[in-house]
Amino acid sequence: MEYEEPKFFQVMGYVGEAEHDVVDMVSGNPDWEPPEALREGLREYAEFEPDRFQYPPSDGTAELKAEIADRRGVDPERVVITNGTGEANYLGMAAALERDLGDEVLLTDPVYPYYPGKARMLGGDPTFVPANRDGSLDVDAYREAISDDTALVVLNTPNNPTGAVYDHANVEEVVRLCEEHDALAVVDEVYDHFDLSGTFESALTIDSENRIVTSGFSKSLAITGFRVGYAIFPEWLAENAKARHMLVNVATTRPGQHAVLRGLEGADAAYYEAARELIRERVDTFTDALDAAGAEYTRPDGAFYVMARFDGYPGTMANVERLIDEAGVAGMPGEGFGEAYDDWLRFALVTPRVEEAAERLAEFFA
Amino acid sequence: MEYEEPKFFQVMGYVGEAEHDVVDMVSGNPDWEPPEALREGLREYAEFEPDRFQYPPSDGTAELKAEIADRRGVDPERVVITNGTGEANYLGMAAALERDLGDEVLLTDPVYPYYPGKARMLGGDPTFVPANRDGSLDVDAYREAISDDTALVVLNTPNNPTGAVYDHANVEEVVRLCEEHDALAVVDEVYDHFDLSGTFESALTIDSENRIVTSGFSKSLAITGFRVGYAIFPEWLAENAKARHMLVNVATTRPGQHAVLRGLEGADAAYYEAARELIRERVDTFTDALDAAGAEYTRPDGAFYVMARFDGYPGTMANVERLIDEAGVAGMPGEGFGEAYDDWLRFALVTPRVEEAAERLAEFFA
Repeated sequence: MEYEEPKFFQVMGYVGEAEHDVVDMVSGNPDWEPPEALREGLREYAEFEPDRFQYPPSDGTAELKAEIADRRGVDPERVVITNGTGEANYLGMAAALERDLGDEVLLTDPVYPYYPGKARMLGGDPTFVPANRDGSLDVDAYREAISDDTALVVLNTPNNPTGAVYDHANVEEVVRLCEEHDALAVVDEVYDHFDLSGTFESALTIDSENRIVTSGFSKSLAITGFRVGYAIFPEWLAENAKARHMLVNVATTRPGQHAVLRGLEGADAAYYEAARELIRERVDTFTDALDAAGAEYTRPDGAFYVMARFDGYPGTMANVERLIDEAGVAGMPGEGFGEAYDDWLRFALVTPRVEEAAERLAEFFA
Repeated sequence: MEYEEPKFFQVMGYVGEAEHDVVDMVSGNPDWEPPEALREGLREYAEFEPDRFQYPPSDGTAELKAEIADRRGVDPERVVITNGTGEANYLGMAAALERDLGDEVLLTDPVYPYYPGKARMLGGDPTFVPANRDGSLDVDAYREAISDDTALVVLNTPNNPTGAVYDHANVEEVVRLCEEHDALAVVDEVYDHFDLSGTFESALTIDSENRIVTSGFSKSLAITGFRVGYAIFPEWLAENAKARHMLVNVATTRPGQHAVLRGLEGADAAYYEAARELIRERVDTFTDALDAAGAEYTRPDGAFYVMARFDGYPGTMANVERLIDEAGVAGMPGEGFGEAYDDWLRFALVTPRVEEAAERLAEFFA
């Protein structure tokens, strides 16, 4: 079969080949420092005896599992430490689809493009449920869309690309719909530390046997390249998910797990708040300039993306490439996230050059 | 579905709970030093700018891909850097099974137990082809077993658990059989640096569009916990395998890739030869003591395992646990590797206490 590759790496490749200066606002790579304790964790690890260089337990080191379980208030047996949130989502989605109780996967439109790719790879059949115009969950639309053929609903909050932070009661309603139809809900909360609104509540507080929560440290500790994430399963699904994890990856990188453990211990509330504050400032700067350029845009309640719409310039790959070539600004094409935002472009605010980028856009669209 | 979990972690768990002294000969964790340059790579990485902590290219860093491609004499575009050889085998096996040209997967008996687990997870139907008594490939048995329903043949040389190093002409014959039946051959060469016989030749030298080679650095650089391996695909399969890798794992851990790159540059021929020499000495020590105990055993031509058979003590999980409890020696049950060796136990020679273990066994079976 042919897979749909998310367009991230394609756009990044195009940027990489450009010979002129381009402000890169493509991928969600934090541009700030990881906690110093995380660096110290790597240094520490480099001096360990060779036995610490060998296989960790397949589902994660006891220390990191305990730390995560403690922070999330769950039994460590329910936690699987994964190769990033990417693998966590893969495991969660596989847990739903391998039950053979239906093929349908309800995804949002707009959608983080890895989800439909994973769904199809796992034999699922995606149906897209449009979000409300403001990015919030349209619960009625889920009620209409869900059926006994639905195996899985995937939610992502705070949301990439819309920046919406879902109302907790809405998330709970969707989880209840899953219960009624013997489906599973995977709630990807990788942006949980980037709630700019103060309203985010984890789906873990919903008492349900049909809900899987995924998250990771790529964004919160600014280490997308380390590949350490986790999934929290209901007890009855944990063992099978761990077996799949073992059969696919054997285990997750041990130096990475050690560095993350130290990073978690070292990162205080001020560390996370500083990152949110930086994003808030960049949102202001960028949207001010978008105002000046007469563009329509979303103001994120969470995560660190802004969607912008410029009159007569739909969010196609061709237009993204033209913007790279002629304006020196790289974003993601809205069409990469589905139909709802195919007129839009997504800009990741993880560069200190947000103001410059906004000015370049204003000039280009003047 | 229920997955068959390889028994490694189960036996390791049992050892971990023992309150008396146990010589651990269960898993293939090298007990020697990684190259010093690899440790230096971690130290170096700890000081990098934050941008080097972010996503590497999905299929691997350009530097490590180039180094591997150069060493293996292939186009870098054919290389995917994976979360250990485990993921490499998963990708290779998936590439065969997702073609929907048959379900049958030919595996050896005895077999490395991850292979049947992966095969079933991917919708395959394993058929076991018995190895010859000396562990070598029985090409006639493959000729008889293969059919147009065969999607995949998995070979592992140097072999775990038998220690056989397959005759290159035999491997080539099996690859040709795959070509005739439009099947793929995955050849797992993770023990390629542990050829004790001097006769090993990589399957990469076979000119074929139906052969995938997997390997990694877990054994050769003594870092099973780092999770860095690779698969080399024929060009026509590479793109799809990379897409699957991206959809499952996004990318492979970047600090690990950097440390491996430095480790590879730093490990000279003497580093690898010292590891082989250590294994040769341990094989002698262990088999001398097995002789004294009147046991039957295999003398490995490659890898670092010895299979031993003690009269009236078949290789069941119960017997393995009794040996841990009463003799203080932990091995793997032969039944974990299929039927051919279910009378046997497998011992991994990756502990300095090989002599002590052999003496304990001799005493227990006296």
